[in-house]
Amino acid sequence: MSQTRIILPDREMPTAWYNIQPDLPEQLPPPLHPRTHQPIGPEDLAPLFAMELIKQEVSQEPWIDIPEEVLDTYRLWRPSPLHRAHRLEKALDTPAKIYFKNESVSPAGSHKPNTAIPQAYYNKMEGVKRLATETGAGQWGSALSLGCSMFGMECTVYMVKVSFQQKPYRRLLMESWGADVFASPTEMTNSGKKILAEHPDSTGSLGIAISEAVEDAATHDDTRYSLGSVLNHVVLHQTITGLEAKKQLEMAGDYPDVLIGCVGGGSNFSGFIFPFFPDKKAGKDIRFVAVEPTACPTLTKGIYDYDFGDTVGLTPLMKMHTLGHNYVPAPIHAGGLRYHGDSPLLCLLHKNNLIDAVAYRQKDVFDAALLFARTEGILPAPETSHAIKAAIDEALKCKESGAKKTIAFLLSGHGFFDMTAYENYLSGNMIDSDFPEDMIKNIKSSLPQI
Amino acid sequence: MSQTRIILPDREMPTAWYNIQPDLPEQLPPPLHPRTHQPIGPEDLAPLFAMELIKQEVSQEPWIDIPEEVLDTYRLWRPSPLHRAHRLEKALDTPAKIYFKNESVSPAGSHKPNTAIPQAYYNKMEGVKRLATETGAGQWGSALSLGCSMFGMECTVYMVKVSFQQKPYRRLLMESWGADVFASPTEMTNSGKKILAEHPDSTGSLGIAISEAVEDAATHDDTRYSLGSVLNHVVLHQTITGLEAKKQLEMAGDYPDVLIGCVGGGSNFSGFIFPFFPDKKAGKDIRFVAVEPTACPTLTKGIYDYDFGDTVGLTPLMKMHTLGHNYVPAPIHAGGLRYHGDSPLLCLLHKNNLIDAVAYRQKDVFDAALLFARTEGILPAPETSHAIKAAIDEALKCKESGAKKTIAFLLSGHGFFDMTAYENYLSGNMIDSDFPEDMIKNIKSSLPQI
Repeated sequence: MSQTRIILPDREMPTAWYNIQPDLPEQLPPPLHPRTHQPIGPEDLAPLFAMELIKQEVSQEPWIDIPEEVLDTYRLWRPSPLHRAHRLEKALDTPAKIYFKNESVSPAGSHKPNTAIPQAYYNKMEGVKRLATETGAGQWGSALSLGCSMFGMECTVYMVKVSFQQKPYRRLLMESWGADVFASPTEMTNSGKKILAEHPDSTGSLGIAISEAVEDAATHDDTRYSLGSVLNHVVLHQTITGLEAKKQLEMAGDYPDVLIGCVGGGSNFSGFIFPFFPDKKAGKDIRFVAVEPTACPTLTKGIYDYDFGDTVGLTPLMKMHTLGHNYVPAPIHAGGLRYHGDSPLLCLLHKNNLIDAVAYRQKDVFDAALLFARTEGILPAPETSHAIKAAIDEALKCKESGAKKTIAFLLSGHGFFDMTAYENYLSGNMIDSDFPEDMIKNIKSSLPQI
Repeated sequence: MSQTRIILPDREMPTAWYNIQPDLPEQLPPPLHPRTHQPIGPEDLAPLFAMELIKQEVSQEPWIDIPEEVLDTYRLWRPSPLHRAHRLEKALDTPAKIYFKNESVSPAGSHKPNTAIPQAYYNKMEGVKRLATETGAGQWGSALSLGCSMFGMECTVYMVKVSFQQKPYRRLLMESWGADVFASPTEMTNSGKKILAEHPDSTGSLGIAISEAVEDAATHDDTRYSLGSVLNHVVLHQTITGLEAKKQLEMAGDYPDVLIGCVGGGSNFSGFIFPFFPDKKAGKDIRFVAVEPTACPTLTKGIYDYDFGDTVGLTPLMKMHTLGHNYVPAPIHAGGLRYHGDSPLLCLLHKNNLIDAVAYRQKDVFDAALLFARTEGILPAPETSHAIKAAIDEALKCKESGAKKTIAFLLSGHGFFDMTAYENYLSGNMIDSDFPEDMIKNIKSSLPQI
């Protein structure tokens, strides 16, 4: 049997992130100011983000060096292993090879620290003392708490109140790394106070939590804001996964026919596939498959237009596939995939037919998750399980056609903080939700008029 | 900076376990029949254990080959990384080097699968369809559920009722791997029925759960019993960690002055240190430090004598350090360290002054856990944190003396299923418990009279 895990030697760990911007098929439409609708510049972002991150957001350099201190911190768990899923292949009786890049090995249990670490580092270097962010299910808040603790920074997390109450273990994880976690809406910001005055019983929303974190950063000189997906610099940091995977597949003597990842804001999928994009551009036959929940099918059903990044309408307008910033997806367990938009970089590729997208229902996704856990051992996060489902489907297509394809997917995280989702599935009470078809025609009218 | 993680190449993974028995300073006293007090033989154990495991229990061969199928399954996560804890060293400002062997990377999150996998394998090879076991906090039940799922076997876990109710996430993890988990006492066994008849509201105990699992195995031809610590064959399987660590330290150009591990039943500590024992025997200056909770100080306060392995008095008598099989330790968070006895192999070494033992209070242990999480990133299990506390103390001693010692400890597991323990600590409500000093004189009289 060929090797089960392909381990990249430490000396082979990438020392620069890959920036897709110079390789794009067309220019990326600029973000627009939410009120003036004019392209925003660095000065608009400076109160919120470290200057180095603002530069990365618009950089046209194809490679951006990873600072030595970030590399040292990555080394706590990186390079991450690439696994050959021999047992899953056998269970499926497929002629396909299935690989997965295992990002669940990070201390926070997901790919999110790949950007939390550099974001904390750049802010620290620019004298910032504290980072503020929002979190829903808690994956991103955990990663940033870890990131801040690694550089001795303070971290304030506005956690959607209903999650704060229902997911105490995620909150405790953040607090264990030293973060201050507050149930949003809070009485600490004007945004929070305003909501509470109108709705004293508000259980919060990601939109409100974003508003609170942004206000916190904007009103404190020593504080900046931090975002865990969507933006170009976030996606840039995630390319470490694809760069490593490419080298690891080479070590295994393979090149992928299909690359797969789940898409919420798009950072894990983009980070995985972008480093392979120059090959595709040069004519290589490689397919990229983005996987969504049917409850929030941004790429498969959304329209490509300017929309707000948040639900409240405070962020810059970004050109992306969107279901409308007012859309509230059904409360599926894959909380990290319940986002109305997607990374503008990723959307531009999808608009140019360079990326395929599929959507799955959560029961089918959990069927796949359990098969994976019982063959490969690892219990995957609900979000991740969307990618697993698509990989299994690709492998079954190979079984039918006899094609010996090489399939690789990103295992974005483990499911140890998602056991209630497994309980829901195992007890037979899981409910499926689709995007209401009749809402498609309403998306356009819900968007800001540019 | 030297390397953060030392990764053993796949081809260097050990292919045989190290058996300490031929190297012992004196012969291991045999286990005795619980009623006749005569040495037990294979025929007594055959209804409960696979024959290959019974052979390993008494083997005098110094090396026992690891079956190819077990190696293939180990490869899902092994070899595990050895980390150099640069950040912790820096935080302590110590001249010592601190290494840790990271067993938290297994799919079940601890070292326990190192023995669950071969136990499932040998039973499968001998035609056994199902394994029965008990679990308290759930670490061992999780590992055996994983092990059984890897070989397509059924798994029945008798989980102490109070844990079943308080730790639903652990139960769900086992069920996700396909195990049947029951709150013990159950109505399914005579042992359980008897308890429930007398105490309908019984919340169970590990002793009762053992009785149920043993009865289940003894009364079903297709079923065997499985134990996660204490026994010689369990400790044998765990030597994979020490064997790997030895090679990894060599790769780093180091040899340890001190090896540290926490001790409940003794399997993780023994597996880590035994492969270094021949060096010590040959005169090498190396110290082994076993770490216990003050609430259950088996090695530091117990006496060395024959006692039952369980609280009910059904198992063979083993010669070991014991606090008496009736001793009920305070409900500290490190549930895996609440065992009245210890591995007879380990105890024999301790009796011969070849092992040091220390005991810590849980507040001090959690201080160490938090410092570790905030420097090295990984959130450790409460049990594991005992080893961390001892490693920190050794490093601080070096700071005082200026000695540049090399310290290595076993990181036996992560704390993602122990967040209530962290909550208890972070909220300032953690209570310390010591072994009642006046009970020491009563230990002897609580033991069976041989």
